[in-house]
Amino acid sequence: MCVPGCMDLVHKRLGRRAMFGGAGALAATAALSAVGSSPVRAQPSGSFTSVVDMTHTLGVDFPTYFGEPQFEMTRLAGFGENGFNMFEWRVVEHTGTHMDAPIHFSSDGATADQIPVEQLVVPLAVVDISARAAADPDAQVMPADLEAFEAEHGRIPAGACVAMNSGWAQHVATDMFRNADADGVMHFPGFHVDAAQWMLERGDIVGMAVDTLSLDYGASADFATHYLWLPAGRWGMECIANLDQVPPIGATLVVGGPKIQGATGGPSRLIALV
Amino acid sequence: MCVPGCMDLVHKRLGRRAMFGGAGALAATAALSAVGSSPVRAQPSGSFTSVVDMTHTLGVDFPTYFGEPQFEMTRLAGFGENGFNMFEWRVVEHTGTHMDAPIHFSSDGATADQIPVEQLVVPLAVVDISARAAADPDAQVMPADLEAFEAEHGRIPAGACVAMNSGWAQHVATDMFRNADADGVMHFPGFHVDAAQWMLERGDIVGMAVDTLSLDYGASADFATHYLWLPAGRWGMECIANLDQVPPIGATLVVGGPKIQGATGGPSRLIALV
Repeated sequence: MCVPGCMDLVHKRLGRRAMFGGAGALAATAALSAVGSSPVRAQPSGSFTSVVDMTHTLGVDFPTYFGEPQFEMTRLAGFGENGFNMFEWRVVEHTGTHMDAPIHFSSDGATADQIPVEQLVVPLAVVDISARAAADPDAQVMPADLEAFEAEHGRIPAGACVAMNSGWAQHVATDMFRNADADGVMHFPGFHVDAAQWMLERGDIVGMAVDTLSLDYGASADFATHYLWLPAGRWGMECIANLDQVPPIGATLVVGGPKIQGATGGPSRLIALV
Repeated sequence: MCVPGCMDLVHKRLGRRAMFGGAGALAATAALSAVGSSPVRAQPSGSFTSVVDMTHTLGVDFPTYFGEPQFEMTRLAGFGENGFNMFEWRVVEHTGTHMDAPIHFSSDGATADQIPVEQLVVPLAVVDISARAAADPDAQVMPADLEAFEAEHGRIPAGACVAMNSGWAQHVATDMFRNADADGVMHFPGFHVDAAQWMLERGDIVGMAVDTLSLDYGASADFATHYLWLPAGRWGMECIANLDQVPPIGATLVVGGPKIQGATGGPSRLIALV
């Protein structure tokens, strides 16, 4: 099992015995207070006068967490020979602009197809730490950032997705997106587990989005944010694009996530209604 | 090349020389007047107070046009052993609730990633032929149906997607969805090429959606609707769900189509804002 590059990373970072902590991860989940099952909202509502595509184009060279290719296309039919064009895809779920469903980091959480559609059309709050991140690629969204956001923009709406704008989307086509050091440790921003806890305790935030490859910061060894957020029944979205083109608050994010039976997530189409 | 089942179907239906007409298809495209490149709209706008999921769940047994499986999932990581869950998918693009991009039936049309996002958030018009189709599975949407729709509901909005409600979504889990006869010819409804021509001549309709496996009716031997609609720069959507849960006019369809480089279409998440 495991994707190309995955087991190498395990050996370098975490040792052979257990990937991502095994029993340690379970202990971490128990120690932090989960806030029960995912909140169910009233029907989403809103209005808009423009749209913004928040999705990167996925090609075979799109950067991946493990650093190895995770997507290939095989032609099945060509117009000249067959009268139509068609491909088959082979893709690891966590590739490109993609969703993390609760099951991705839990034993029994909701799969991608089980997320209620009411949790896929959500108010979008964008927390901008890009200036700090430009100076420090290990920067993390902290509770203080969320407090400051609300002081400026008002309370994060019920049922929202909170997105981190770290400025990293601009690096998607270069090695800076992973920013791996000589030991293979990546350095890009993410949500600190304390910020994830703050969001959980709010009770009505359903999604967390990042413009990087991981909800956790790149150098994370324990994936604490993943292990807190996803088992609590929330969803995550990684490699989101164009956060600079939406307001800090007021847009609606439509999450075109995969409705694929049993999936742990997958490539998604994200469209903001502004 | 070609998916499992595809070449069998070719031999039975169309003969060995050319699939789907080859030169014949090109002639058909030239004879009908295409209405130039796809219309570019002003920014979409709208308001809503509820959402409806228009997407079927895609599993390995989802019915396919060619009657053979087109989707498989392979586990790459398990929570107990690795601390997280992850799968790899192998999927033929035209599987499940999915998009047909212009390139699917043209030599040089737009690929899925090239469709402007403004054409993915669209007014939805639902033309109901389900009563007629229940009595006649070869029923097709005709220009008279579109005229009657407008007489009742007003003009189809600029930039719309016109969807056929044939009642076929209820059959998705049974053999009735393909409804193949003893010769392997399928019988389910679709858009007649004259209706496609009517929609093209309107000039500002960007999408065509069906609750069946094909824009053309199931017994089509020449795919005339595909060969008219797609090369004209319009998109199609097949296997849409829940058309009974949206009004004939007034909803906005958000098309979470694949933003995959060079794709001819692919599994999509469709969400109606009502």
